[in-house]
Amino acid sequence: MAHAFKNCSNLMVTGASRGLGLQIIESLVTGGFSPGKIIATARNPDGAKVMLRADSRSPIYVTCQESIERAASEVEQLVQEEGLNCLINNAGINVVANLETVTADKMLENFHTNSVAPLMITKAMLPLLKRAAAKGTGMGIHRAAVINMTSLLGSVELYWGDRADTFKWYPYRTSKSALNMVTRCLAVDLEADGILCMALHPGWVRTDMGGPEAPLSPEESISCVLSVIGGLTEKDHGSFLHYTGEQLPW
Amino acid sequence: MAHAFKNCSNLMVTGASRGLGLQIIESLVTGGFSPGKIIATARNPDGAKVMLRADSRSPIYVTCQESIERAASEVEQLVQEEGLNCLINNAGINVVANLETVTADKMLENFHTNSVAPLMITKAMLPLLKRAAAKGTGMGIHRAAVINMTSLLGSVELYWGDRADTFKWYPYRTSKSALNMVTRCLAVDLEADGILCMALHPGWVRTDMGGPEAPLSPEESISCVLSVIGGLTEKDHGSFLHYTGEQLPW
Repeated sequence: MAHAFKNCSNLMVTGASRGLGLQIIESLVTGGFSPGKIIATARNPDGAKVMLRADSRSPIYVTCQESIERAASEVEQLVQEEGLNCLINNAGINVVANLETVTADKMLENFHTNSVAPLMITKAMLPLLKRAAAKGTGMGIHRAAVINMTSLLGSVELYWGDRADTFKWYPYRTSKSALNMVTRCLAVDLEADGILCMALHPGWVRTDMGGPEAPLSPEESISCVLSVIGGLTEKDHGSFLHYTGEQLPW
Repeated sequence: MAHAFKNCSNLMVTGASRGLGLQIIESLVTGGFSPGKIIATARNPDGAKVMLRADSRSPIYVTCQESIERAASEVEQLVQEEGLNCLINNAGINVVANLETVTADKMLENFHTNSVAPLMITKAMLPLLKRAAAKGTGMGIHRAAVINMTSLLGSVELYWGDRADTFKWYPYRTSKSALNMVTRCLAVDLEADGILCMALHPGWVRTDMGGPEAPLSPEESISCVLSVIGGLTEKDHGSFLHYTGEQLPW
C-alpha cells in the first residue's frame, strides 16, 4: 500500500528527529512513492540522528500552545491551498513509573505530551485538514487523515492475565488509553468533514524508547505501519489497529 | 446485597458533601446494615447540603498530595488495627468542553481530579487497605476493595454510532477512560494482596453534575450501586460494571 502515498500531497509527522518518526520520513523518502510534501517536526530538528530529508523541519514543543500555533502557520505557508492530507501524531514519551514510584506530576507530564498534545496539534491543523478534505471523496490519506500513534499498552482489555506481568507503567499506559479516547472523540467530530481518524500501535520497536530487547527493527515496524496507513478507508475510521492491520480491543 | 455492608468494618467515600457521595453516606446510614465506621471526605465537608451523619468528615483536596497524606494519617487514627475495608473514589468533576472550546488546561484539570487523584488516594490508603486485607480471605468488601466511580462516557467502545450524538466532552470522557486504565493497573498490582479493584458506572443521575434531565434519582442510583458493591467477589476483580451489575466494554 506504500504506493498510496503518491496520492497524498502533504503529510506531517511529529517527533521526527529520531525513532519511529525519523523512520517514517526515511521510509517515505526512499520508498519511491513518497507524498508531495513531507513536513517533519521535532522539539530539536537539528538533533536528528541522520539528516532529515524533508521539505520542512519545524521545531514544535508539543506541550506549548504558542509553539503549536506557530507551527500551524508555517505548515500553512508550505501546503497553501492544497491543505494537509495526513497528520501523524507520533511524538510521545514514556515517563516510567510503577505503583511505588508514580507521582501526580509524572502522570500529568506523560498525559500532557501523549494525550493532550495530539489533540491540540490536530485542532491547530484542522483548517488545513478540512481544506484538503474538501477536495476529495471517500476516506483515506488521499483526502485527509489523522493518525495517532498509540500503543497496545493502552488497551485496558488486553492488560490482564498473561499480559499483565510486565510494563507496569502507570503514566504511559494511562496516557495511551486517554489518547485512544481522544482519537475516538476526534473520529466522531470529524466524520462529517470526511477526515479519517484512527489509533495505530506500531509494535515494540528497537528505538531509544523501545530499548535493545524489542523484537522489531524500526524499518520492519514502519514498513507495516505505512502499509496500514496507506490502505486506510472508511471502514477504519475510529478504529484501533495493530501494525499488522488487525483490530485491537480498547 | 446491602446487608453485605455489615461485614465491612470501615468504609471511606471521597466527594461526600453532595451528589452521589452524600447519597452513599445517607443510604448506608439509614439502611440498617451500615458499615462499622463511615469516613466521609470532601473539599468542604461543612458545605454538605444535609448534615453528614458519618464518623469522620475530613477535608481532602484530592489534587493536593499533602492534603491526601494528612487525610491518610487521620483515617489511620480512626481505623487503627482494623484497617480500611472499602475505599470509594467518588470525587470527580466535569470540565465541560467540546472540540471547539477544549484547551490543554481543561484536559489537565479534569485528568488530575478524575484520574490521578483516585490513584494517589489509593496509594496513600494502601497500608490501611493491606492491613484489612491481611485479616480476610476471598475478595470483596468484607476484606478490602477499591471502587472507582467512573462513567459509561469513559467507554471508548461505546462512544460510536447512535451513542455518539451527545456529551461531546473531551476532558471528561478522556479522564474517565484514563481512570479505567488506572483501575486496571491497580487491579493487576493489588491482586496478590487480595484487594479487589473495579470501576463502576453509577448511571446518569439528577445531581448538580448530572443536571435535572437525568433519568435517575440519587436514591435509585445509589440503591443499585450499593447492591453491586455489596455483592462484589473475585469474579468482579478488574471489571467495569454498570450500576445494574452488567459488564461494560472498555
